[in-house]
Amino acid sequence: MVMTMTEEFDGHLQELRRGTIVLASLRLLREPGYGYGLLEQLSAAGFPTDSNTLYPLLRRLEKQGYLVSEWNTEEARPRKFYRTSDAGLRLADTLSRDVQAIAAAATKLP
Amino acid sequence: MVMTMTEEFDGHLQELRRGTIVLASLRLLREPGYGYGLLEQLSAAGFPTDSNTLYPLLRRLEKQGYLVSEWNTEEARPRKFYRTSDAGLRLADTLSRDVQAIAAAATKLP
Repeated sequence: MVMTMTEEFDGHLQELRRGTIVLASLRLLREPGYGYGLLEQLSAAGFPTDSNTLYPLLRRLEKQGYLVSEWNTEEARPRKFYRTSDAGLRLADTLSRDVQAIAAAATKLP
Repeated sequence: MVMTMTEEFDGHLQELRRGTIVLASLRLLREPGYGYGLLEQLSAAGFPTDSNTLYPLLRRLEKQGYLVSEWNTEEARPRKFYRTSDAGLRLADTLSRDVQAIAAAATKLP
């Protein structure tokens, strides 16, 4: 148990943070952006994550209709950029209220 | 996509809430308690969950050393009750700071 304690401790922190990556991504992608640029923006905004977490998440959010994507073909290698849909903005508003409600409830715990 | 939209929407909310169940459980179990009673306390404290989520979580937290358990054999049917360990209290403090930091970062999103 002792050997993996730090790993498990970090695991609980990560679980807590993961849910908020969706919120932060939807808000930041009001301005269309690439996955790589979003990684940096997330980190700067206090929601650090990695590409192995973010890229599948972006594909899932697109499939669910919360993000829309387009291809930028102006450069040598076409790149996909994402933008938050109206449904995505509504989801972000709900998640945002939820985060604040959870934080308020947390301050009242014994 | 439209048919499952509500389900997926709820899924994102649940992911966000799940991480905070650990924090709330560790804080509430400073006072030793049973799983069933904890379910009611969690709901009252603003962290609703269900037994299918909570009971495996309690077993996992015990295995990781964040909770300790004892059996109450005073009644006809022995019942297990849990209490937060010192390591669990430290984890809760860290999670609590993290929740507040995340909530503060969320208010600064565009």
